[in-house]
Amino acid sequence: MNLKCIAITLASLWIGGCCYAQTSARDIKDDFKPSPLNQPGKEYPQVNSQGYARFKVFAPQADSIRVSLGLGGQGGTLLTKGADGYFTGTTSGPMDEGFHYYHLTIDGGVFNDPGALNFYGSTRWESGIEIPAKDQDFYALKEVPHGNVQQILFPSKSTNTSRRAFVYTPPGYGKNATKYPVLYLQHGWGEDETAWSNQGHANLIMDNLIAEGKCKPFIIVMTYGMTNEIKWGNIRSFKIEEFQTVLTDELIPYVDQHFQTIANRDNRAMAGLSMGGMETHTITLNKSALFGYYALLSGGIFNSEELKDKPKPKLVFLSCGSKERPEGVMNAVAELKKTGYNAVSFVSENTAHEFLTWRRSLRELAPLLFH
Amino acid sequence: MNLKCIAITLASLWIGGCCYAQTSARDIKDDFKPSPLNQPGKEYPQVNSQGYARFKVFAPQADSIRVSLGLGGQGGTLLTKGADGYFTGTTSGPMDEGFHYYHLTIDGGVFNDPGALNFYGSTRWESGIEIPAKDQDFYALKEVPHGNVQQILFPSKSTNTSRRAFVYTPPGYGKNATKYPVLYLQHGWGEDETAWSNQGHANLIMDNLIAEGKCKPFIIVMTYGMTNEIKWGNIRSFKIEEFQTVLTDELIPYVDQHFQTIANRDNRAMAGLSMGGMETHTITLNKSALFGYYALLSGGIFNSEELKDKPKPKLVFLSCGSKERPEGVMNAVAELKKTGYNAVSFVSENTAHEFLTWRRSLRELAPLLFH
Repeated sequence: MNLKCIAITLASLWIGGCCYAQTSARDIKDDFKPSPLNQPGKEYPQVNSQGYARFKVFAPQADSIRVSLGLGGQGGTLLTKGADGYFTGTTSGPMDEGFHYYHLTIDGGVFNDPGALNFYGSTRWESGIEIPAKDQDFYALKEVPHGNVQQILFPSKSTNTSRRAFVYTPPGYGKNATKYPVLYLQHGWGEDETAWSNQGHANLIMDNLIAEGKCKPFIIVMTYGMTNEIKWGNIRSFKIEEFQTVLTDELIPYVDQHFQTIANRDNRAMAGLSMGGMETHTITLNKSALFGYYALLSGGIFNSEELKDKPKPKLVFLSCGSKERPEGVMNAVAELKKTGYNAVSFVSENTAHEFLTWRRSLRELAPLLFH
Repeated sequence: MNLKCIAITLASLWIGGCCYAQTSARDIKDDFKPSPLNQPGKEYPQVNSQGYARFKVFAPQADSIRVSLGLGGQGGTLLTKGADGYFTGTTSGPMDEGFHYYHLTIDGGVFNDPGALNFYGSTRWESGIEIPAKDQDFYALKEVPHGNVQQILFPSKSTNTSRRAFVYTPPGYGKNATKYPVLYLQHGWGEDETAWSNQGHANLIMDNLIAEGKCKPFIIVMTYGMTNEIKWGNIRSFKIEEFQTVLTDELIPYVDQHFQTIANRDNRAMAGLSMGGMETHTITLNKSALFGYYALLSGGIFNSEELKDKPKPKLVFLSCGSKERPEGVMNAVAELKKTGYNAVSFVSENTAHEFLTWRRSLRELAPLLFH
């Protein structure tokens, strides 16, 4: 690690979900490339090898464009208008590796960057940008056998709708009568059932782990977890009962009926990120006869007291980013181990409450499941 | 049909892809509802029972917002800024029923409407709006058994990538060893492999037809057809060879290996809309031993001369909207019938070169396939 890297690391601050270091313009390397999440053929936004992001947006009669990514205290990155009608600007510091949501504020209104693909987060389709991570290989699209991601529509009497879920089936699924374990995997607040595939690359992480022989092939089921609440600020009024009913009385029976599953506790896991972790925590405690493996990704902890009168989980997995509060996860796992539980912690280096933390968490979790 | 309806119909003009009639403001019914394609919880854009669309966009410091939908000659619908910072406006006439792409021009720059979902068209993710059609029931999400739409990643040596396709499998697929015929179904210019599910509701059309016993269950495969050209204006430089290789040498063998297909000509169809029709025309003629059924949806015609030295197709299906040039389709089918071919035409009433034409075309085509 050279001196500049150390200086950046020491100066980095936790601000509004992203991490920035103050660096003068002359230190910014001129090796910007289009973000891997741009719309086809779009040159901007761009990212350089240090993690700076650069934006370029055409709006010749606009007065002001601000990008929501940037130093939080200063309200993101204010772009500068050029004579050619393009607004351009660069974040004031390098951003954390991995995926970030963002949007543009154009003359006071919130819009997406026409250069970037959109991802559902914050209860809206937001622009997305990817700062290539040093370890990006584990979620890259490679020449390996690929599983499929299926959109299913399952009947839900409790909500009187056909509900959508995505089901990852591993390579080779359906070629013979082999049955597979199932992981139920939840998104975070403001996201939906598309998040783990689109932002998380859960399917590619699994394809790569399976190709390397690092994990057993299993099915992953992802559905929408905010059944009774989608508005900002009302997370406290969220009630688990409605989603629990959809998941345990409707989705699980549907999946066990329509897919080649091993339909028992030892072959059923539940995991979730952030608010999905909260849901996982509550539902696995309420329905501990259903799930054998519990995982909370930046989503709280379990303690031995709440587990003690229930069927023992085969694994409790707790993770978060190093820029969150890893002590909580570490201490909880230490306490669980001391009281006789199979508990594992994982801390994602140099990441916060964002998707690279959760991609890495899935990479660490998957090999521990269903043994 | 009352007098007003007749007046609207007579006055309607083909302008820029949509049809409008001049109607004074006092005739606009005040029964606007959010478009069915809005983002979760978003009130605008809205549509009334006559097919007018109303827009409302917040951008308090912007000078000008124009919606690309509206009277073509006048450059769409210019919104009016209110004291509350919202720009609002209504199309100057009713729009054709069905799906329309659109975008906003905000102070000279092109952005999407933050209220609407996005759909890939015109080689970018555009905003989408749905004018509810009188016959919308055939593509509605109903309480019937649902098939799945699977994302597959198939290896393509010719393009040196893993390529994406979506595969519709009918209800019950995979429960036993039953094998199914396959329709290869192509999107139009500037769209991609998401179009037939997202804009076209191909899966729901099939679910509903199958539930009513109107068509045989079959598989639909949808992949990206613009393998060597995505830029505006260069459609003439498009060469079929690259896509034909992907489709016939790579995708079809992959599907036949990984899905329960009946892998022969009599159980393989190809169809496409617009540019996808052009591709279907060329590829079925080049590879007539592979496909038994050909369908061009607003995508040109076949004549008996070009078919005469080839294995005879079991069906030639040609369709378009009544606001396109239906004579071409009707005449071509008459000529094919006269020369001994099983040819069927379909003209979608009161629609142009847009997705309601193609949803209806699929509804008409599917029952004719694989008999």
